[in-house]
Amino acid sequence: MVTTTAAAPEGPARPDGWSVGLDVGGTKVQAVLLDADGGVHERRRVPTRRGLVGVVDSSAEAVEAVLHAGGVPAARLRGVGVGLPGVVDPRAGTVENAVNLGITGREPFAALLSHRLAGVQVQLENDLNAAVQGAAHVLDVVEGQPVDDLAFLALGTGLAAGLLLHGDLRRGARRAAGEIGHLIYRPDGLPCPCGQRGCLEQYASGSALDAAWPSPDDRPAPAALFEAAAAGDERAVEVRDAFVRAVVAAIRVLVLSCDPERIVIGGGVSELGGQLLACLVAELDRQAAASPFLATTAMPDRIRLVPPGLPVGAVGAALVFRAPTVGRPDEVGV
Amino acid sequence: MVTTTAAAPEGPARPDGWSVGLDVGGTKVQAVLLDADGGVHERRRVPTRRGLVGVVDSSAEAVEAVLHAGGVPAARLRGVGVGLPGVVDPRAGTVENAVNLGITGREPFAALLSHRLAGVQVQLENDLNAAVQGAAHVLDVVEGQPVDDLAFLALGTGLAAGLLLHGDLRRGARRAAGEIGHLIYRPDGLPCPCGQRGCLEQYASGSALDAAWPSPDDRPAPAALFEAAAAGDERAVEVRDAFVRAVVAAIRVLVLSCDPERIVIGGGVSELGGQLLACLVAELDRQAAASPFLATTAMPDRIRLVPPGLPVGAVGAALVFRAPTVGRPDEVGV
Repeated sequence: MVTTTAAAPEGPARPDGWSVGLDVGGTKVQAVLLDADGGVHERRRVPTRRGLVGVVDSSAEAVEAVLHAGGVPAARLRGVGVGLPGVVDPRAGTVENAVNLGITGREPFAALLSHRLAGVQVQLENDLNAAVQGAAHVLDVVEGQPVDDLAFLALGTGLAAGLLLHGDLRRGARRAAGEIGHLIYRPDGLPCPCGQRGCLEQYASGSALDAAWPSPDDRPAPAALFEAAAAGDERAVEVRDAFVRAVVAAIRVLVLSCDPERIVIGGGVSELGGQLLACLVAELDRQAAASPFLATTAMPDRIRLVPPGLPVGAVGAALVFRAPTVGRPDEVGV
Repeated sequence: MVTTTAAAPEGPARPDGWSVGLDVGGTKVQAVLLDADGGVHERRRVPTRRGLVGVVDSSAEAVEAVLHAGGVPAARLRGVGVGLPGVVDPRAGTVENAVNLGITGREPFAALLSHRLAGVQVQLENDLNAAVQGAAHVLDVVEGQPVDDLAFLALGTGLAAGLLLHGDLRRGARRAAGEIGHLIYRPDGLPCPCGQRGCLEQYASGSALDAAWPSPDDRPAPAALFEAAAAGDERAVEVRDAFVRAVVAAIRVLVLSCDPERIVIGGGVSELGGQLLACLVAELDRQAAASPFLATTAMPDRIRLVPPGLPVGAVGAALVFRAPTVGRPDEVGV
């Protein structure tokens, strides 16, 4: 699925040449090396060290690892795109409130990483905004399905979506677009660190599954749960089905608000693959059967899982140096 | 607030000349006459007669009434824009499933009305999509607050929103954008005609108030309820506050999905005016005080009521002949 060529082209860098994309998460930094045509050449991952200095160092190591693997010197890079959680200001090159990374204040991450990489240009992006662009690129290049109108629904530690609407990144007036994890799903339900109760994120995320079905061994909680449910464990079936209904609620929110053409599901839980998709489609079908209105929205036809193993967040981060304009000028700060 | 000039300009029609906008609702057709600069010259309303023929006739009468009032002959019209409930196909000029109007099948409404008006060009639009454009125009022209990124939240018979995102009308891939009234607000709650239970529309709409607090006299239910609550009726306070919380949930859905810069509240219930706005702001403030996350979205600063008495739906419908392009070409069919 991934285009891999061992050797880098000879000669001087083209202005539209190589780029590196990073997806910086709480446990690992994923890196990809993209050529001028958006082909993925190399992939590496390194563990994330917490705190500002740790995250900058981990990011620099990931860049160096993927450049080394591809035989591309840093001087030939057009730039490094970085997807980060938290509040990212692409224009200023800052990140703040990235709690998972141990970064709280407003930090000049782009400048620090650029300095660490001897001046290579660094562009930051919110991780979900990077991922939705990566997902669009992957559907286009890898699956031959060009689509410029989609949501990337991340079922990870939290629950949130990135939105690409008719090719424009939708950040929102206060950068709250796609923050559907903090819509109320269960009135007076589970407490959420955001200060509310019953947030959708408490029911439709990897963390929700970890809490509801702690894995008995080294497997991820989602895999353990779905296996137990498939084996007929009644309690597991109950927990799985409640989770599936909550994810379907998240899909319904996206469709009945922005109505993007595709909903691409990623994040750690999406590694469940076909068994997750089958459960989601079954629940969507069940609800559509009860509601002619919902049936007109054809949701089951519109959901996709991220192709397994493809780091769409890192790919999307690298694309910032490829697309001439992504997002609105007043939003991306160009 | 409304620019009114008694006499029409002399001379032949300019190509960017007069236009009429209609907002066709279940009980009345509202009509406005706009000049080339978007100024509102005349307004009229006529009762809606149900069924295809009745609605076409009522619409034609509304056009004729407003033209007569303005002294503008039909031949000088650039066109008639019509906002209709239901599933509208602007390209084909058809409407279907407009249950409130007694129109079920797919009907060539634009052609029928054009024929009835001796060939005047007629352009259809979904009523909420018309209204959000009208609301943007009104904020711009009347209030001096240009804004091209907003949601129009209609608290009428139903609950739904029109979305203008960075100046582009957002209809959605299956025309489901803004259909937030059918998100679940109360699991296993009140049955909804859409086939689901607990839909937000059953709690945050004019119909919801009619059902929860039938008016004891000729006043609209919202006015009777808010008056009783202000007078200290405990049950009224309870019903009012539950309604306000549901409307706030609708606002939260809009902000945590698309995050438009402004949320403009219209529909019959918005005629409550300042007392409604005060209740909404108080509830938003209360929730923000409990959630630093919600506080960052600054929702209280972003909500507005439609200026009283201004038929934004009809104004927006008329604007289709003024704006060079509204919406995406593949959506509006131009």
